[in-house]
Amino acid sequence: MIDIDRIRSDTPAASRLVYLHNAGAALMPTPVVAAMKQHIDLESEIGGYAAADRESDRLDAVYRSVANLLNAAPDEIALMENATVAWQMAFYALPFRAGDRILTAEAEYAANYVAFLQVAKRTGAVIDVVPSDASGELDIHALERMIDERVKLIAITWVPTNGGLVNPAATIGRIARAHGIPYLLDACQAVGQMQVDVEAIGCDMLSATGRKFLRGPRGTGFLYVRRPLLRQLEPPMIDHFAAPWVARNYYQLRDDARRFETWENNYAARLGLGVAVDYALAIGLDPIEQRCRMLADRLRSGLASVRGVTIRDLGRMPGAIVSFTMDGYEADAIVDSAAAAGITIGASHPSSTRIDADVRKLPVIVRASPHYYNTEAEIDRLVEHLTGLAQQ
Amino acid sequence: MIDIDRIRSDTPAASRLVYLHNAGAALMPTPVVAAMKQHIDLESEIGGYAAADRESDRLDAVYRSVANLLNAAPDEIALMENATVAWQMAFYALPFRAGDRILTAEAEYAANYVAFLQVAKRTGAVIDVVPSDASGELDIHALERMIDERVKLIAITWVPTNGGLVNPAATIGRIARAHGIPYLLDACQAVGQMQVDVEAIGCDMLSATGRKFLRGPRGTGFLYVRRPLLRQLEPPMIDHFAAPWVARNYYQLRDDARRFETWENNYAARLGLGVAVDYALAIGLDPIEQRCRMLADRLRSGLASVRGVTIRDLGRMPGAIVSFTMDGYEADAIVDSAAAAGITIGASHPSSTRIDADVRKLPVIVRASPHYYNTEAEIDRLVEHLTGLAQQ
Repeated sequence: MIDIDRIRSDTPAASRLVYLHNAGAALMPTPVVAAMKQHIDLESEIGGYAAADRESDRLDAVYRSVANLLNAAPDEIALMENATVAWQMAFYALPFRAGDRILTAEAEYAANYVAFLQVAKRTGAVIDVVPSDASGELDIHALERMIDERVKLIAITWVPTNGGLVNPAATIGRIARAHGIPYLLDACQAVGQMQVDVEAIGCDMLSATGRKFLRGPRGTGFLYVRRPLLRQLEPPMIDHFAAPWVARNYYQLRDDARRFETWENNYAARLGLGVAVDYALAIGLDPIEQRCRMLADRLRSGLASVRGVTIRDLGRMPGAIVSFTMDGYEADAIVDSAAAAGITIGASHPSSTRIDADVRKLPVIVRASPHYYNTEAEIDRLVEHLTGLAQQ
Repeated sequence: MIDIDRIRSDTPAASRLVYLHNAGAALMPTPVVAAMKQHIDLESEIGGYAAADRESDRLDAVYRSVANLLNAAPDEIALMENATVAWQMAFYALPFRAGDRILTAEAEYAANYVAFLQVAKRTGAVIDVVPSDASGELDIHALERMIDERVKLIAITWVPTNGGLVNPAATIGRIARAHGIPYLLDACQAVGQMQVDVEAIGCDMLSATGRKFLRGPRGTGFLYVRRPLLRQLEPPMIDHFAAPWVARNYYQLRDDARRFETWENNYAARLGLGVAVDYALAIGLDPIEQRCRMLADRLRSGLASVRGVTIRDLGRMPGAIVSFTMDGYEADAIVDSAAAAGITIGASHPSSTRIDADVRKLPVIVRASPHYYNTEAEIDRLVEHLTGLAQQ
């Protein structure tokens, strides 16, 4: 059981705000904030290098924490500035030739898709979008039919930035493994919301952020790369941390996933990330997922009763990102009116998932994303607020 | 005149520590620390997105501050996680073919050199090291003789990580311009220590860090790219911030230098960087440089009188990085013994500037780097400490 009172006391803003914007950036628990501020203080007391040296055990432990979160090994983890850089360092390390195929999904995130387009332009590789099934999930049978020897990568977003969808990541993993195709999973909106087990999923590479459902600091992310693939991947860019300069004309890539890192980092943010991961693990990802789904389902039920609201979610078992539109109101107007009532939600633009938005003719949509620290009463406050809007 | 009392009161650790490790990471002034902690508090009060929105004016102002520091325009500035990423995003954006030549200097930093090696391996480009003159500076006449139509880049470190050297950046700039060769300047150890004027220097790209002589946070850096070149450079990796996804098969690169950034960042660190830049500008880079040189020269004079000490500095007018070795003591032992006496200095390994270290047969050397907030008395304490060691 989640001790909701303790958790809310670790989340001071929860007493003032109905915070339902966890798919944007969640509220950090106080231990995360404290870890960052303490490290900044230490840096100003003894200098930035001495501070990192003194906290080296805790900094090393961040790799173990992230590895535990993913059921991976610490040497398969790189800590990065954000999920995009994590994803990029893996994706751009892959070799593509003209005619090679990249398979992705309809609701793929814009950050990834523009990178596909750049690499396609550079190399002649081809992007093929796997269609969705009737539920809106990536169509597994279509994926299987599309596979041939030219497919060099399957890269999908597990939980798209809007639309509630949870793609069948593990089923895709079984297909990728059966055909020996590298599988890059964008788990930005999944980590901290649900169990993420790279063995169960079967992905070869996974990228994620700290600031969303993990409740970590902004400017943090991480990359997992499975060990056998790791040794084959030369990072697209290197420095002397990734690849020490061992002789005048030679560098030697690190053996571990830190070959994708650079030397200098924001250590305060890293420590905050580690605390955030430990905080989630202490609660347990299964209880977190259950409570997220319970609250999201309650929100969808409530929204269904509000006049003029259309829920825009997909999939057999949607997650904690609840997307909707409302007749007569632009998404931004709804976000602003909720903010004025002390309720924090967000909007999501079609350009962030352009193919899905085109297929579904989506306008800008409202995105409300509860987390385990929210309460049923908070969900009901949003529904009441929208009911009030609908009656105006 | 520098108000040293006020500055030291903004640097609380200066009353407890003789901090001479500014080439590693300087002590942050209290306004920098306060800016970061305030933003972290704001993020925990209203959420990470709302906090960035509320501080958007101050966040925009960071670009203006950095532009002022460099005598550039704000749209020529990208804010990055560190100087390495800044340098990489420029360097790896440049097109090279087999036989193209990259000219660099003997004391080039390891991070950059391994990237040269990687690109040389990938493309067949050739790295040519311009020899140093008798003073240890890059030999300008040799550089001129080495230029031909195959030279596609001049990339040097202005102030190498050790050795006191200040390379003739502006003279190199005149040569680069005269021949129309792109010029990438690593200014990591220069910013915050001396005037950095991209017009006077004539560089096309410049990278730097926040944490060294600028006294900013760890995990901050920036890139300058001259506007005409900017429009020609496609970043090596992109996301939807650098290149919005404008139609299914098209992205459109931003017009400004932020095409080298990614969407997600550590905003607390960015605000700290902006405050650090403004703090340096308020003091004035000319007085800062004068005081740095005065203190470094005092240290070199003092060291010259210590038995067994060999100063390892180069150049006609060495800067604030003072490098030395001492008979009978490993560098790390000197650093440790100084630390035990409340004096913070560092060591520098030959692998960080391998070519220069090979040429000069350098072991690990000690690096003491004063800044304007240091005092003559602190310099003398280090000299006295080493004198005591020499007498043991």
